[in-house]
Amino acid sequence: MAQKGFHVAVVGATGAVGTRMIETLEKRNFPVETLTLLSSERSAGKTATFKGKPITVQKAEPESFEGVDIALFSAGGSVSKQLAPEAAKRGAVVIDNTSAFRMDENVPLVVPEVNEEDIKWHNGIIANPNCSTIQMVVALQPIRKAFGLKKVIVSTYQAVSGAGAQAIQELKEQSKAILEGKPFVPEILPVKSDEKHYQIAFNAIPQIDKFQENGFTFEEMKMINETKKIMHMKDLEVAATCVRLPVVIGHSESVYIEIDRDDVTVNDIRNVLRDAPGVTLEDDPANQIYPMPAFAEGKYDTFVGRIRKDLDRPNGFHLWVVSDNLLKGAALNSVQIAESLIKLKLV
Amino acid sequence: MAQKGFHVAVVGATGAVGTRMIETLEKRNFPVETLTLLSSERSAGKTATFKGKPITVQKAEPESFEGVDIALFSAGGSVSKQLAPEAAKRGAVVIDNTSAFRMDENVPLVVPEVNEEDIKWHNGIIANPNCSTIQMVVALQPIRKAFGLKKVIVSTYQAVSGAGAQAIQELKEQSKAILEGKPFVPEILPVKSDEKHYQIAFNAIPQIDKFQENGFTFEEMKMINETKKIMHMKDLEVAATCVRLPVVIGHSESVYIEIDRDDVTVNDIRNVLRDAPGVTLEDDPANQIYPMPAFAEGKYDTFVGRIRKDLDRPNGFHLWVVSDNLLKGAALNSVQIAESLIKLKLV
Repeated sequence: MAQKGFHVAVVGATGAVGTRMIETLEKRNFPVETLTLLSSERSAGKTATFKGKPITVQKAEPESFEGVDIALFSAGGSVSKQLAPEAAKRGAVVIDNTSAFRMDENVPLVVPEVNEEDIKWHNGIIANPNCSTIQMVVALQPIRKAFGLKKVIVSTYQAVSGAGAQAIQELKEQSKAILEGKPFVPEILPVKSDEKHYQIAFNAIPQIDKFQENGFTFEEMKMINETKKIMHMKDLEVAATCVRLPVVIGHSESVYIEIDRDDVTVNDIRNVLRDAPGVTLEDDPANQIYPMPAFAEGKYDTFVGRIRKDLDRPNGFHLWVVSDNLLKGAALNSVQIAESLIKLKLV
Repeated sequence: MAQKGFHVAVVGATGAVGTRMIETLEKRNFPVETLTLLSSERSAGKTATFKGKPITVQKAEPESFEGVDIALFSAGGSVSKQLAPEAAKRGAVVIDNTSAFRMDENVPLVVPEVNEEDIKWHNGIIANPNCSTIQMVVALQPIRKAFGLKKVIVSTYQAVSGAGAQAIQELKEQSKAILEGKPFVPEILPVKSDEKHYQIAFNAIPQIDKFQENGFTFEEMKMINETKKIMHMKDLEVAATCVRLPVVIGHSESVYIEIDRDDVTVNDIRNVLRDAPGVTLEDDPANQIYPMPAFAEGKYDTFVGRIRKDLDRPNGFHLWVVSDNLLKGAALNSVQIAESLIKLKLV
């Protein structure tokens, strides 16, 4: 019996994440019957290729979602706020990669390796978490299941691609200008819509997204709040410092955790992660094996290494977590949610 | 009455730190009567300029230190191990910027803003701490004095210049090659003498110095052990994760601390740091003001910003600490120790 095919729409089809959504649907042989590619008016008319065939990108409108089964959104929060409810109203299940609905209590926030079951209570919209949150919870969930989890302190090392294609361009052009001793004017990073822009090439900027009243950035609050929601741990202590680096693709995270038990060894943690879904253990210091963003690009897994037991607290551990922020951090996780919808017969 | 002039020697005079030692002696108008520049045989014969006059660099030998009052060493641990005792034997006070003597209990480890008094018990050698340690203790000491300090967890964002002039060259050439789509072979970073070398351009490498048995790198253990020694806090909880970035100059640090008191506010911490020696407070999130390595280059101070109260623990705070690793992290701190020697009439 042939598997049922689905009508899939990708909104934001020409962006850094959207193009990877299309690639990922193809690579994972997702059962696509029809693929509708949507974008803003500016990008409408462009062509993308899926399984060797060209598809023209159309302007996204409420009517675009008639007959769509699954709609993958990654065109910014305001597009999602406007069009995701329209798509849901027309019977599509929306998988939204923006922050628009993530903390909405009527919207599940899902990383399939962690909380696939939450998909079951969706009301037409499922949110895809923030990139830096996804890879962290993929690494933490198996540890939590085995040994409990009390506290998380994370410092991130994030790639510019998280800020979109223009940020990638800015990093490359700025790097070239600096190497050639030419002048340049920062225009995109750290936050395009914020007032000041700073050099990212050969620099580190401790701001991702805008500042909140409490001194944390929105990105940091996303990591804190989304982690609690995905892991169903309202009382988990989580703190984050998010930093943008001159890296094109691949977020890295230095994560300190305190677990429930005092008797756990580094090898216990390694054994748990070695068998964990979506995780590749890369942890052999004697042979200088540890994860790095330059080698995570294009890979599906979350890479974990540098696992050390804290020297002061017997329940403390340090980890280094790396993943492709455009794949597991965005496009892949969205497609995995769609796969879970099929597996759970919810579409 | 004219101030006494001193006979100063710089060992490793042609290196990234050595050249900055010479510049710093000149800029701070250190009372130099005679300047002897020393190096390995390979660099001997080169010329450096001090106060407009050329000085020929000589090969460092035990006899080079006859008549020297103060010898600033920054030519690698093995040179220090061999020649620092020879210099001390001949009556020079050695200020050593390598890790050779830092944890020796007969050698004070000094950051003048923190423990200047320790200079008094020197036995001919005073150690200059590791770059990443110095800037952290400059930021933490005023907080500790005001509010106590229990725990420190730091993740670093370190510039390649900490690995020497060859590493700077490698970052620049590799960046150029990647931008032009040309091949390259990593040869220096993360650790020249270690077996494997990895791409640093557009990457982040979670290894600085070699790995120890316990899974921490030597750099991480330096931060842990040196912090306790400088601050005279044997029982302080300290953990470090050290990461090399594609940044030329300027180390950054994401620091989580727990202090003794629960009633301290972000403004209390700001007020203490605003008046602290060697610290510039750069902390105005509403106006996107925070420290960044690209803007710390060439500056003497340690810059602190992104100060936030932890959302879970009332005694927890997060800081972002940046400084020029070649100046406060090395050359400047060494010259400051020499200034303290004069101030305390120990030379």
